[in-house]
Amino acid sequence: MLEGIDHVALAVSDLDESLAHLNEVWGLDEATRERVEEQGVEEAMLALGDCCLQLVAPAGKDSRLMRYIERRGEGIHHIAFRVEDLEATLKHLKDKGVELIDDSPRPGGGGSLIAFVHPRSQNGVLIELIQRPR
Amino acid sequence: MLEGIDHVALAVSDLDESLAHLNEVWGLDEATRERVEEQGVEEAMLALGDCCLQLVAPAGKDSRLMRYIERRGEGIHHIAFRVEDLEATLKHLKDKGVELIDDSPRPGGGGSLIAFVHPRSQNGVLIELIQRPR
Repeated sequence: MLEGIDHVALAVSDLDESLAHLNEVWGLDEATRERVEEQGVEEAMLALGDCCLQLVAPAGKDSRLMRYIERRGEGIHHIAFRVEDLEATLKHLKDKGVELIDDSPRPGGGGSLIAFVHPRSQNGVLIELIQRPR
Repeated sequence: MLEGIDHVALAVSDLDESLAHLNEVWGLDEATRERVEEQGVEEAMLALGDCCLQLVAPAGKDSRLMRYIERRGEGIHHIAFRVEDLEATLKHLKDKGVELIDDSPRPGGGGSLIAFVHPRSQNGVLIELIQRPR
């Protein structure tokens, strides 16, 4: 069902500062960057072997992510599993009684479809499911 | 410098319960399992595409991980980057002024060498560096 880890997302306060740090210290380069207005975040992807690191920063003061960082601090925010068929995966999870944040696929970056699973039923881990375009 | 993400580690209270859940819901199988007495933890690795998920559970009541879970809850604990030459990577990081938990490589599971980087200087992310045997 799961094809692999697509990316690991880090919540950071200042996207530019974190990107500069990851480049200077770890030699990682920004691959893509986009502002997702409806979620109040700005995201950057950095290739790392076969996976990616994603940086997610609050865009605007009323961002939910800003409140998350104030409460929990910066750090690893979620892990994204790549799936072949997101619709089928969500049906499977519902059948297993798993609590979902998104009941059905919604558009993500780069033409992907995504859905989030609630951390409550997953050992406190926020899981994103992502179906990449073929 | 970094070859990729080796694994993402989840802190869980009950290893057996979490392994059963990951198998039942996500179809993941335990690949290896070991008790690391000096760290007061029991670990399991689960293959997931080219990466691994690692579950880390407290072994014994005075485990540091037990206190971590009491304070922060279960969830993503650290991310491990695979490196070719751990000694050289640690030297590079020291030259960059990065705060290390382990100044020099120490033995990890499966014949690997590992070292941890302090989350303080890395956006709150606990980073493990791991050099796998060739």
